[in-house]
Amino acid sequence: MEPFADRLRTATSKFGPLCAGIDPSPKTLASWGLPDDPSGLAAFIEISLEGALGSVGVIKPQVAFFERFGIPGLVVLQDLLTTARAQGLLVIADAKRSDISSTAEAYGSAWLGSTAPFGADALTVTPYLGLGALEPIFSAAAQAGSGIFVVVSSSNEEGRGLQTAAWGAGSVEEHLLNDIGIYNRSHRAETVGAVIGVTREPTAEAVGAMAGPLLLPGFGEQGGSAEQLRTRFAGLPNALVVSVSRAWSSAGPDARALASRANEFQDQLREALA
Amino acid sequence: MEPFADRLRTATSKFGPLCAGIDPSPKTLASWGLPDDPSGLAAFIEISLEGALGSVGVIKPQVAFFERFGIPGLVVLQDLLTTARAQGLLVIADAKRSDISSTAEAYGSAWLGSTAPFGADALTVTPYLGLGALEPIFSAAAQAGSGIFVVVSSSNEEGRGLQTAAWGAGSVEEHLLNDIGIYNRSHRAETVGAVIGVTREPTAEAVGAMAGPLLLPGFGEQGGSAEQLRTRFAGLPNALVVSVSRAWSSAGPDARALASRANEFQDQLREALA
Repeated sequence: MEPFADRLRTATSKFGPLCAGIDPSPKTLASWGLPDDPSGLAAFIEISLEGALGSVGVIKPQVAFFERFGIPGLVVLQDLLTTARAQGLLVIADAKRSDISSTAEAYGSAWLGSTAPFGADALTVTPYLGLGALEPIFSAAAQAGSGIFVVVSSSNEEGRGLQTAAWGAGSVEEHLLNDIGIYNRSHRAETVGAVIGVTREPTAEAVGAMAGPLLLPGFGEQGGSAEQLRTRFAGLPNALVVSVSRAWSSAGPDARALASRANEFQDQLREALA
Repeated sequence: MEPFADRLRTATSKFGPLCAGIDPSPKTLASWGLPDDPSGLAAFIEISLEGALGSVGVIKPQVAFFERFGIPGLVVLQDLLTTARAQGLLVIADAKRSDISSTAEAYGSAWLGSTAPFGADALTVTPYLGLGALEPIFSAAAQAGSGIFVVVSSSNEEGRGLQTAAWGAGSVEEHLLNDIGIYNRSHRAETVGAVIGVTREPTAEAVGAMAGPLLLPGFGEQGGSAEQLRTRFAGLPNALVVSVSRAWSSAGPDARALASRANEFQDQLREALA
């Protein structure tokens, strides 16, 4: 399969930079008048997918909101992955997995590649156990033409202390961006990308040198503005998507309203990143 | 339900400090002559449980090795959780989950409490997004009498750079231990514990002040010795378990051999920690 970063560029040039976040929390299901059970979850997914198709190229289901229903929730997730990808959507599984060696490899088997039970186009991971420990996941992704997004600078405030701790010549987040860049360049690929909150201020040099795709959360509801996107992320060589969850799904439970809200976001984001 | 730390003390005083790690990797299934599919997984679990019962009080299934088989693998995990807990074993789900706010809460719903589909006695989490972001999981655990183990000093080498980065007056791992202690003391509980590799060298003061239970991996196959356990972890006030996975399961596929191997480890560990 074509490498993920290239597929991401194709999807965003066709539809725009929006990644529709699918976060079926108890609160969101309630706001759509849906029961907080697997049937409500399935209904949420059906309407969300209908609202996404034709308006966005990329969606990001938040895995925790399926896992909370156990097996029936994960069956809905599996259906979503299969249906969405069959219809041409790119799917980023927001699972924030993390482990070492053979365990990291097992997460690769679960989420990446044509034989993966929860096959996605890309997977989010967290780096606390070290980037090196995640290399089996990176390899699985490279082989499958999938992508990995390492959470580097999260959009929430509670992570700032750890993420800005001093590591070598810079901060933890700068060090990670640098190490990701080393990995990508040494493999002549853009397999490994980074999650960076829209409100964060990595230098354009650091992000460019990371040499992988960007997943940017925190636009809108978490305080990120079009101006921040423009000054921090416009004109970068990286493939990128901006994920919006609640501010998108709050248009529902109506596929047309979701499509129309998605189109508004696409216009705003295209303009900010032009 | 009685708080997890107290239940952990009861289990380890009855059986000893061993936590039997259940890591059904492709390699381990092959070494037991089992097929690398859900039927092989189920057979591995059945024999492992039989070998654990009566010899250990605590088991730790590695969730990735179930997730890699998709829904059928997770059905086996669910059966394991139910069966093991019904037979009085404490189960630590090694899932290393991590996320923020309502998403962290969803992981709590998935893994902790009497209505959780994958109900465990304790759950491992990673702290890259900040300890504060995990508070919904801590609260869910406290309410359910469950425990949380935050990965602080992992047993693998690739994590050392990040985990020893300079944060405030100390390292990332010292800072986290301190913050966990503040959380536990302010809630007058031992809900939140830490994962610390046996080969790591946190000070006894730092570990004691963390005021929660310890999960110690890396004994045996990853280089940790009885001497390291003795000098670093004996005599601490914390409830603790030492997890051993491959060196335990390599005694199989025979429940008696597993029980006998577990008893050997219990003797070694009891002596080291006396």
